[in-house]
Formats: sequence, structure tokens, C-alpha cells
Amino acid sequence: MSILVVGSVAFDTLKTPYGERTKILGGSATYFSLAASYFTQVRVVAVVGEDFTTEHENVMKSRGVDVRGIEHSKGKTFHWGGEYGENLNEAKTNFTDLNVFENFQPRIPAEYADTEYLFLANIQPELQRQVRESMPKVRLVGGDTMNLWININKPELLETLKGVDILLINDTEAKMLTQDSSLARAARKTLDLGPRALVIKHGEYGATIFFKDGSYGTGFRAFRAPALPIEEVFDPTGAGDSFAGGFMGYMASQKQVSREVLKKAMFYGSVMGSFAVERFGPERLQELTRDEIEERFQLFRSLTHLD
Amino acid sequence: MSILVVGSVAFDTLKTPYGERTKILGGSATYFSLAASYFTQVRVVAVVGEDFTTEHENVMKSRGVDVRGIEHSKGKTFHWGGEYGENLNEAKTNFTDLNVFENFQPRIPAEYADTEYLFLANIQPELQRQVRESMPKVRLVGGDTMNLWININKPELLETLKGVDILLINDTEAKMLTQDSSLARAARKTLDLGPRALVIKHGEYGATIFFKDGSYGTGFRAFRAPALPIEEVFDPTGAGDSFAGGFMGYMASQKQVSREVLKKAMFYGSVMGSFAVERFGPERLQELTRDEIEERFQLFRSLTHLD
Repeated sequence: MSILVVGSVAFDTLKTPYGERTKILGGSATYFSLAASYFTQVRVVAVVGEDFTTEHENVMKSRGVDVRGIEHSKGKTFHWGGEYGENLNEAKTNFTDLNVFENFQPRIPAEYADTEYLFLANIQPELQRQVRESMPKVRLVGGDTMNLWININKPELLETLKGVDILLINDTEAKMLTQDSSLARAARKTLDLGPRALVIKHGEYGATIFFKDGSYGTGFRAFRAPALPIEEVFDPTGAGDSFAGGFMGYMASQKQVSREVLKKAMFYGSVMGSFAVERFGPERLQELTRDEIEERFQLFRSLTHLD
Repeated sequence: MSILVVGSVAFDTLKTPYGERTKILGGSATYFSLAASYFTQVRVVAVVGEDFTTEHENVMKSRGVDVRGIEHSKGKTFHWGGEYGENLNEAKTNFTDLNVFENFQPRIPAEYADTEYLFLANIQPELQRQVRESMPKVRLVGGDTMNLWININKPELLETLKGVDILLINDTEAKMLTQDSSLARAARKTLDLGPRALVIKHGEYGATIFFKDGSYGTGFRAFRAPALPIEEVFDPTGAGDSFAGGFMGYMASQKQVSREVLKKAMFYGSVMGSFAVERFGPERLQELTRDEIEERFQLFRSLTHLD
């Protein structure tokens, strides 16, 4: 089934212990859609500027991504500059040129009206809510957010969360959102805000999905997927969005969203996140095969399963 | 098969967000032996002072632990004071009164000569080495260490590591020991120092065992066990030693140490660590049943296994 991601398509200028790159393709919607494209039909709503070329667009198109929802606007494309030190879990932002992204007003093309899965990548909560409400027929809504919105747009964010089925955030965001220093309690409190399931991403330690009681079946209220111990993380940018792409993409490829499907989706999320960091930008996500993905899925299984 | 732990038996005065306790039973050997006692015959070598009463000793004895190796010395028992804030992963030390522990010279009773498994809890590396060398017949040696020894006794520690089969340390210690900020690389470099397997404990994120190529069978070089998402961590003291007790205890209860056994041992380690933090001090570890342990083992399975 088709999945629509609304988020950023951007340029990144970055530096990691393995090298630097200037103005390479980035953005949450880019990582998400490339990762999800291995599982299902992906549609994108985003805005880019005049410096976004056919070549850039072809990166997504050659993976079969439907880019009709990418609006080409006067001005420059969103451009983020940052660097990672030895601690690859934290980026230092050098500059954030929002450019055309500053006045982004997501417009859903008529051709996208039959979309069944929706992922609200990290944009302003009020815009997320508008998109979600403009698509009453979607079967399942995934969403992301960030510390900035928790700090300055919390009331809007809380309103948005009521319309999100599965929220994907990291440890810090979950604790900040609920003002609770215990991850397990923060998870329960977040589920009280609306979502039926919550994925908390722990960076190099993997991710945990917490289920609201009775949601998506029965069983233990949590499931944990590992991350791969990788010696050479070239560039951690986009790992979280690639996780979300694998997670939502796999889900959308299945007939029903059961707890069993969500557990496997957690593994596919981790798999796509692990590929993303092996090269700079979304390079690695452009050239994968389904066989490589299945092989790594089995590696994750052997990393965690007793038998 | 029997397992001997050499470490500290101590008193702890501590404060957590859930309350405070004065001079309760603690120490690495205490947590280790209580946790391991549910799996196999445990022997202890440690030193205590005159304030260590029969009542204290009975905590271990009533779990069937052989305490003949606990030396009663003139003076006071090792006494640690500390507290935990909202971040339960880090303790703030208020005082460390080494007392009789300062001149601890481990003496292995003749009755312990046939011991098959040895765990060198966190004591000075030179003492660990002496103990290990005085027991040439042990089948498998587990060991722990800490940042202090990595900083001030590194040459001795490196010598000790050559005689340790399985080292159990945490993330910070592994990175400090190898001076490498990548966990995966730090693991490989640690294995180059001697141990055939390395368990890195990630606190609330669980633990990973890394195998030296070909050690204990074949397969993927790592295996990860989760920690339970717990809403109320009463007292994190001793979680790591309880992990080690469950891990080594289960191992010693098996005929052979294969990779399959080590994976299960990782789960039993996590299980015992999860019990330890549910109450203050080693309270919870005194009253468990094997059924409760098996039940929690299954919970850990459902937390991680796809099917």
C-alpha cells in the first residue's frame, strides 16, 4: 500500500571523523522515502528551491518514489550545516538556512488522496495537524517531532499527537515531552497523550516500541530491536529517518498492522538505519538490494535471538 | 559446578529518589553470590570487620552460599556512601571508607581448591592476577574492573586480562581501556588484550557480549540482551554485580560453555540485574524463586524475539 511522507528535502554540509561533504542531498523526507522505497510505493510532499536540480530529484525518482508532491519554489533549498565529533550521537549545528522551508505550506496533490499510510516527519506541529486532518481516509499515521517544538510549540504538539497512531522520537525527546527522567514512565505518559504505540530510538543501543494496552493485539507492552555494533559510522545523519522509513515502509507492505508486523517493522527500521550510516548522506540507501536487506535482517535476528 | 567469587563484602549507606538506607549489606561479592546462588554452588572470598554480624553473614548462608572464605579481620567493614539523582545510571560517592578492605589479601581456603569457575570481582588488578594464578585448575575465569584501575594500574590490569576468559565491564570502561570512542572498535581492541569474550554492560539499554573469532563456537560475533524497561528503579546499586552473578551462575550450572549457553547466560544476567534494582540493597535477591526467575526470563524473550 502507498505511504506518503511530509517533511524536508534539503541540502546538508557536514563533517564527521571520516571526512566532509558540501551541499549533499539530505532532509527527513529524503532519507525516509529512500528507505521506505524498498518496501512499498512512496509519495513525497516537500518544498525545494531553484538550486534543486533534476539530478537531485532523480535520486528519489530512480528508486520509484513519486515526487509529484515536491513543490518547486522561488529561492534556495533548506540547507543545514553541522558536524559530529567522536560522539556520533550528537551533532553540532553550524548553520540552519531554512530558505524556502521557512514558509512551507504542505499541499497534498489530488493524486495522493487515496494514500493509506502517512508519515509526518519532523516539521512544525501545527502543519502536521493540518496535513493529518486534510487526509481523513489514511489508515495509519506515524509521526516524528523534535526538542524545538516540545519547547516552543507544546500546546500545538499535544493537539497533533491526538491524531498520531505511532510516534517515533528519541530518549531525550520522550523525557522532555513528559518531564520524566525514567524512560519507562516517559513511555507510558506519552501513550496517554494519544498515540497507540510509541517508538523510542536509543541511537547505537537500538529502539523500543511501547504499546498502549490492547493496541495492535495483546502481549508484553514493549519490544526492543537492537542496533548493529558498527565499527565505522561514516555519517549518522538521517539514521532516525531511515529507521522510520524502514519501519513504516515494511508496515505499509503488509495486509494488516498486527503486533507481529510491528515487531518485524522495528527490525526493518534498525536494518535501514544501519545501512544509512555506512556512507555519507543517503548514498548507501540508493543502491541496496532486497537480498542485502534480508541478509542484514537475519544478522539482527542472530544478534538477539536465543535460537 | 561450583563458582568462587573474590570481591568485596561491604556496607552501603545510600540515597535514591525512593528513599535512603544506612549501613545496609552491599559489596560486589554479596550481590554476585546471591544472584549466582539460584543457579549453582557459590563460594566467597572477601574480608569483613568486627561490625559484620552473624545476621549479616546469614543473608548469604541462608541462600546456601559457602562463606568459609570470608575472613573476619580486626577493624571495620568496607563502608561506601553514595547517592543517585534522577539519572540512576550515575552514582555520586559521598565517602569510601575502605577500612579492612584496604589491606585485603585474598586467601583461598584449601576446601575451595576444586573450584571450577572463578569470578574476579572489581578489586585491584594485581590481587586478581594472584588469585587467578593460585588456582590453575579453574575451567573459566570471569572478571570485572573499574575506571580507577584503568587510570592508575593499567600495566597490572593488562597483565591480569591475559588470564581472564570473559571480561565484564561497562561502556565507559571499555572506551577508556582502549582509548577508542567507538563501542564496536573498543570491543575488538579489548578482545585483543586477552579475553575470549567480552560483556559490555549498557545500563538500562542492556548488555552485549562480543566473541573473539572462533571462541565458544561460531556465528555472529556479538549477541545483545536487553534490560527491562522498569518504571521504578528503587536502587541501582549492585545491578552490574547481580548481572555477573546470573551470567556466571547460569554458565557454571551447564555441562559445557558453548555460545548457546553464553547467550542464555546473558539473559539470566539481565534477569538478575532487573530483580536487584526493584528494592534497596540485595533485598530482592534474598527471596526469589526459580519460578519467578524463569517467568522473567520469558518476559525478556518476549521483549526481544520476533516469534
